[in-house]
Amino acid sequence: MPELELSPILEAALDAFYEHGYHGASVRDVSNRVGLTIPSLYYHHQSKQGLLFAVLERSIGSIIDRVELAAEDGVTPTVRLSHVVEAIVLSMTILPRASALDASEARYLEGDYRSRYTESQKRIEQILAGIVDDGNTACEFSVDDVPETVRAILGMTQTIPRWYDRQGRFTPSETAERYANLVLRLVGAQPN
Amino acid sequence: MPELELSPILEAALDAFYEHGYHGASVRDVSNRVGLTIPSLYYHHQSKQGLLFAVLERSIGSIIDRVELAAEDGVTPTVRLSHVVEAIVLSMTILPRASALDASEARYLEGDYRSRYTESQKRIEQILAGIVDDGNTACEFSVDDVPETVRAILGMTQTIPRWYDRQGRFTPSETAERYANLVLRLVGAQPN
Repeated sequence: MPELELSPILEAALDAFYEHGYHGASVRDVSNRVGLTIPSLYYHHQSKQGLLFAVLERSIGSIIDRVELAAEDGVTPTVRLSHVVEAIVLSMTILPRASALDASEARYLEGDYRSRYTESQKRIEQILAGIVDDGNTACEFSVDDVPETVRAILGMTQTIPRWYDRQGRFTPSETAERYANLVLRLVGAQPN
Repeated sequence: MPELELSPILEAALDAFYEHGYHGASVRDVSNRVGLTIPSLYYHHQSKQGLLFAVLERSIGSIIDRVELAAEDGVTPTVRLSHVVEAIVLSMTILPRASALDASEARYLEGDYRSRYTESQKRIEQILAGIVDDGNTACEFSVDDVPETVRAILGMTQTIPRWYDRQGRFTPSETAERYANLVLRLVGAQPN
């Protein structure tokens, strides 16, 4: 799984927003980090909002790509759900800083940027909800309230960047597999 | 369940940090909101770090108080775990702004403030881990890795402020009860 591919400007923006928060980071800080003048930076990105959106959108876009592939990889809802959860957890453990921005700074997006980002977040929810619905229909799962369970799955996976340590007990792959098993419990899946 | 009792200064600090983030909020902003001069504000709180710590510590302190009571309220681990999860979810739904700061701004605490706050977070983890251990021993639960499951429980509950809507489908009490049932699934509890 490759690291997120960001331009040098967006790498600098990610660093700045992660270290100081959206409101604490300045466009000057980003331009200094990347060695560009502020006008050059504005040539590529229209505003600080545009920088935040671009970083978040690249990050969630890469997660959506992986989740969409994973959602089709498996015959049964149980297997597909496992793969989707593994794709999300791999992103959280391998790209923890970009993932952490989603949790802490995405709420500062405004207007059209906010709408577009919310659509991306909903895409992941929809994919998960579709698989959970399929699992209920196939009697593999027994989920009472699908949106609630989807939010619980996202909550437990999206907080991984807060504590995950690459030098810790489990590799990203092991963590992904372990969380898939936790999620199968949550949906009441029959053991494979 | 009463709202969090904060002094006017800390109410203003909570507003400012919630709206602009820790780095985006200024002590002047807090002092303007509460109608005090900056020196008067510094008489009560030593620094911006001190303000952030005080808001977060009051919030987590009230959660710990409720969690400690809930952890003793019940004969079996299954009942005690339900009560603790309900206590956490009630805090997240009734005090969403203070709870959201824990997720997004607590990482900016420094030095001694950070150590003390981390201790408070660990207290909640320890209480949950103790009950899950007891449930395993009593064969009520079947948890493979206790710290991992505790983090999953905290992840799914602590992200509630991101989406919870007081005008939505479920009241705080209903949400608390529903999450307790989700958590019982996660630990493999036998139905009561």
